[in-house]
Amino acid sequence: MKLTILGCYSATPRAFNNPTAQVLDIKGNLFLIDCGEGTQVQLRKFKVKFSRIKQVFISHLHGDHFYGLIGLLSTFRLLGREAELHVYGPKGIKEAILLQLKLGNSYGGYELIFHELISKESELIFENDKVEVYTIPLKHRVYTNGFLFKEKLGERKLDINAVLNNDIEQCDYRNIKLGKDVVNRQGDLVANSVVSFDPEHPKSYAFCSDTKYTETILPIIQNATVLYHESTFLEEHAHLCKKTKHATAKEAATIALKANVKQLILGHFSTRYGNIECFKEEASTVFNNVDLADDGKEFNF
Amino acid sequence: MKLTILGCYSATPRAFNNPTAQVLDIKGNLFLIDCGEGTQVQLRKFKVKFSRIKQVFISHLHGDHFYGLIGLLSTFRLLGREAELHVYGPKGIKEAILLQLKLGNSYGGYELIFHELISKESELIFENDKVEVYTIPLKHRVYTNGFLFKEKLGERKLDINAVLNNDIEQCDYRNIKLGKDVVNRQGDLVANSVVSFDPEHPKSYAFCSDTKYTETILPIIQNATVLYHESTFLEEHAHLCKKTKHATAKEAATIALKANVKQLILGHFSTRYGNIECFKEEASTVFNNVDLADDGKEFNF
Repeated sequence: MKLTILGCYSATPRAFNNPTAQVLDIKGNLFLIDCGEGTQVQLRKFKVKFSRIKQVFISHLHGDHFYGLIGLLSTFRLLGREAELHVYGPKGIKEAILLQLKLGNSYGGYELIFHELISKESELIFENDKVEVYTIPLKHRVYTNGFLFKEKLGERKLDINAVLNNDIEQCDYRNIKLGKDVVNRQGDLVANSVVSFDPEHPKSYAFCSDTKYTETILPIIQNATVLYHESTFLEEHAHLCKKTKHATAKEAATIALKANVKQLILGHFSTRYGNIECFKEEASTVFNNVDLADDGKEFNF
Repeated sequence: MKLTILGCYSATPRAFNNPTAQVLDIKGNLFLIDCGEGTQVQLRKFKVKFSRIKQVFISHLHGDHFYGLIGLLSTFRLLGREAELHVYGPKGIKEAILLQLKLGNSYGGYELIFHELISKESELIFENDKVEVYTIPLKHRVYTNGFLFKEKLGERKLDINAVLNNDIEQCDYRNIKLGKDVVNRQGDLVANSVVSFDPEHPKSYAFCSDTKYTETILPIIQNATVLYHESTFLEEHAHLCKKTKHATAKEAATIALKANVKQLILGHFSTRYGNIECFKEEASTVFNNVDLADDGKEFNF
């Protein structure tokens, strides 16, 4: 998986940083996660191939996660897109987007399919042969979901030396990859485990922005490879979390620890902080593999 | 008048240029004209005092002129704005904005007043003690207006030497500025023209984007101090104007010439052109005072 941060600051604008948007590349599937104002420019800046995005996931309808979507959809049309695009987001997103496209007489060219979310329980919302995407219900001021991207378990891998030693015909290689026992040229049954290795452990990425500290997400994100968790504030401003339903760096790290994830990426920093290194310092007192999001930064895992 | 270009490119995004938005400062009145995506960041970048904007004029509801408005309105709220804001734009703008604010539960803090435009004739849409704003009906793919900003005729100026020579009491200075004849200490009537100068000729700024070439605007913009006219294409791509209802640099210059304006600013360049100097060259074959818009460029007149 390759995660590219397009923006990771919270609401009010900064001259040289952008609101939330990310691109996740899973084996060639390009997913756009949130789409704050200016996302299409960030996609250009970081040379992401627009046209390969087929699914967009919007966590909630606050502007810093959503106001860039209409511009991107319009641009797809101007650039001659024909492939269908799927948009997953809270109920209301369809009306807001279609109204604007209608007002600008800008609809058409490609099919735009909305999947409006209303459930307060985690649900499977997307699946293909390689990936599953589940919602992570979050607790924010408006209806909000994080998203869990899970690779599917891949095929078993041939142990080519064992395969040759056991005199297995080539036409059975596919069966071995699918986990089946096979019969060799001598007519003997060969157990699958003798001639194959386990597939790689499937990776997963949990995106959690925006939310107050909530342990209800732990069962969903348990053992994720990488967790992105918002940390709008530091503990010194913890009193602001209550009103705004955001989390501190320390709270994000506590979730990472309790969920037993491998790596934590912090983001959604309030624009009040000049230096964001202190977010890493605070989180590192609780969890020991912490990274900071930054515009244009890539994470490979 | 001071005009600051915040963005002047047309629809598809560029990494380092912005879609249409301008700020016009007339004697301390700050008007925002169009508001493409990213405008709030441009306002930050060029250190324009957000809070002083009290009127926003939107020409039409294509994304590159309008998609930055919702983000700016949300930011005003986050920054604690209390002063009312007036938005002038095509019918439908109110519904699009209010729906998004409602979905994000982001309404309130300050009063937002919409003035929806439907007329196909030029009309006076704003007036205070210093400025009048008229619509300039344009011909584009959707309902579009340009805007004419006209200074009001100022007060007459005292000819202080003549005033003293004519022995006029100080309490009459105000009457002279208002154009009245006055009676001096000797009881003689002194004609206003003897003791005052004409006020400065009022300046005007005509903003015309987007439109095909149309002479119907000439009576409205006649003798304007400065005309901003779109020039999406060069003559070599004139065939694209017909379909898209845009104008070439040469056509913009022809309008400037026929309207007898003092200065022409070109903008709304298609992103297909690498070097925009050729826009100036083409227009200069027709009209001799041509400038190019550019992000962050200021024009004082």
